[in-house]
Amino acid sequence: MAESSIRGGARDAAGNRMSTDDPLPSWREGQAKSAILTFVRSVCERGGSFVPESARVATFDNDGTLWCEKPLYVQADFVFRRLAQMAEEDPARREEQPWKAVIEGDRAWLAGLTQHLPELIRGVTEAYAGITTEAFEQAVREFFASAKHPTLDVPYTQVGYRPMRELISMLQDHGFTVYICSAGGRDFVRPVAEQLYGIARQCVIGSATTLEYRDGQLYRTKGVEQPIDDGPGKPVHIWTRTGQTPLLAGGNADGDIAMLECARFGLLIRHDDADREFAYDTGAERALSEARERGWTVVSIKNDFAAVF
Amino acid sequence: MAESSIRGGARDAAGNRMSTDDPLPSWREGQAKSAILTFVRSVCERGGSFVPESARVATFDNDGTLWCEKPLYVQADFVFRRLAQMAEEDPARREEQPWKAVIEGDRAWLAGLTQHLPELIRGVTEAYAGITTEAFEQAVREFFASAKHPTLDVPYTQVGYRPMRELISMLQDHGFTVYICSAGGRDFVRPVAEQLYGIARQCVIGSATTLEYRDGQLYRTKGVEQPIDDGPGKPVHIWTRTGQTPLLAGGNADGDIAMLECARFGLLIRHDDADREFAYDTGAERALSEARERGWTVVSIKNDFAAVF
Repeated sequence: MAESSIRGGARDAAGNRMSTDDPLPSWREGQAKSAILTFVRSVCERGGSFVPESARVATFDNDGTLWCEKPLYVQADFVFRRLAQMAEEDPARREEQPWKAVIEGDRAWLAGLTQHLPELIRGVTEAYAGITTEAFEQAVREFFASAKHPTLDVPYTQVGYRPMRELISMLQDHGFTVYICSAGGRDFVRPVAEQLYGIARQCVIGSATTLEYRDGQLYRTKGVEQPIDDGPGKPVHIWTRTGQTPLLAGGNADGDIAMLECARFGLLIRHDDADREFAYDTGAERALSEARERGWTVVSIKNDFAAVF
Repeated sequence: MAESSIRGGARDAAGNRMSTDDPLPSWREGQAKSAILTFVRSVCERGGSFVPESARVATFDNDGTLWCEKPLYVQADFVFRRLAQMAEEDPARREEQPWKAVIEGDRAWLAGLTQHLPELIRGVTEAYAGITTEAFEQAVREFFASAKHPTLDVPYTQVGYRPMRELISMLQDHGFTVYICSAGGRDFVRPVAEQLYGIARQCVIGSATTLEYRDGQLYRTKGVEQPIDDGPGKPVHIWTRTGQTPLLAGGNADGDIAMLECARFGLLIRHDDADREFAYDTGAERALSEARERGWTVVSIKNDFAAVF
């Protein structure tokens, strides 16, 4: 491996490396792209900043960092469909939250993540409790085979950010092991991580329901693995899985601050492109303000992404 | 990769592959060796039993499967030294279990794992509670740099089984990702897994204390991550970490039954060599009896290992 040059990370639709001299063709020239390339070169080249491959761990948040999280989380769409079905089957559910809000289309209630967290978590865990990990995976695959993004009007498998996919490939080509580190469900992302991002299922870190093994099968139970993979839980999950802190980490929200803080190189995606994606700083106010102090590289979707999807 | 032949897994002391036609030179010819080679060949060769590399996951218990667990667990020696030090520093501890048993050398009490489990777990978690994962790793490294096995009279880094190291290398050479899956402490094994077995730290699965992230550091707290990585907890930990059940698994005790049960190919190490290692079936009675019914390959240390260490 020639360690003095950065090789291309671009892939065509079939996953083959595209012949190009630019490792990140969907990134516009600018400070962000240049900071990334400089950092990757520095840890791969023999010299003062060299890092062996075994310690080249990169972790990326998923919602809003690798794929679109608006107007609602992809997993919320998945879970709400199931909750509606449960309310259909069991009328008593219709008077209980969060089932009530789902069937009444009460977006205000459902958007109240902070006020209604216990009910929402209950909904998420009960939606698929008691089934095997295999049956859950099947339900996830069926969802991705048919569901479409409500405003972009494409399957959810097409709402990943192309520049981030290039970045992942480039890192992998340079000896990094790249992990997803999602506050969302680990087992919800695993079935599509390879297709969407070229990331193997064992490299998906995320929140999870508790599991139980009996009679040769793994069953999802009603608990939630603690801590949740968000905020200060992210470094805990990353250590648990890798025994390391990340060399490079990417996020987009306040829940990613702890992960970025413990990484050597931090990337913060800023959603500022209402035309091609969505524009919002809500939920990222602290992260954006800390980025300046801590020297994280802020990536503007509007200015730094030549293509978004 | 030539998929029709089995390549050598033997390594010299420096970790370089030894030139030999026999992939497992420390294994005697016999049913066990032959069953392993046949299975590995069948999943690597294109054909009905072919398994893609992404699904070639192998998991091995550690104590008694990869290294010697008698006369006491390596980790017990590590923890007891620390408990003795704690009792030295704080005399009140000397009247409390398990500190009392440690300083009085009360082997009978300490061996009563089942009766004294709560006290022993308390001892294990309190021994190194409140320190960072980094400081804990340093303590583990210092232990391995000086401590010796009480009867074999060699450093603990030399009590791994040579035939198992060859098997791990051979599996890795054939596209397997090999994990340790230990009921003992994950972070106790990580610092030496590469040196002892050629297994990277991110491939160590095991029981763990709870962790907390604050002020840019990870601290060990007093809880124990649930479930413990033993018995039915093993498939849960393996799924959590890999999103799969093992293609091949190796164990030596009743606590490994669930892991072997969910694997396609199960290996059960039998300790029957009082001259070169230890002879005991205690704690493996059910596993040995299930091996027959379930077709697990039983490996006799006495008959199947040409060399042990």
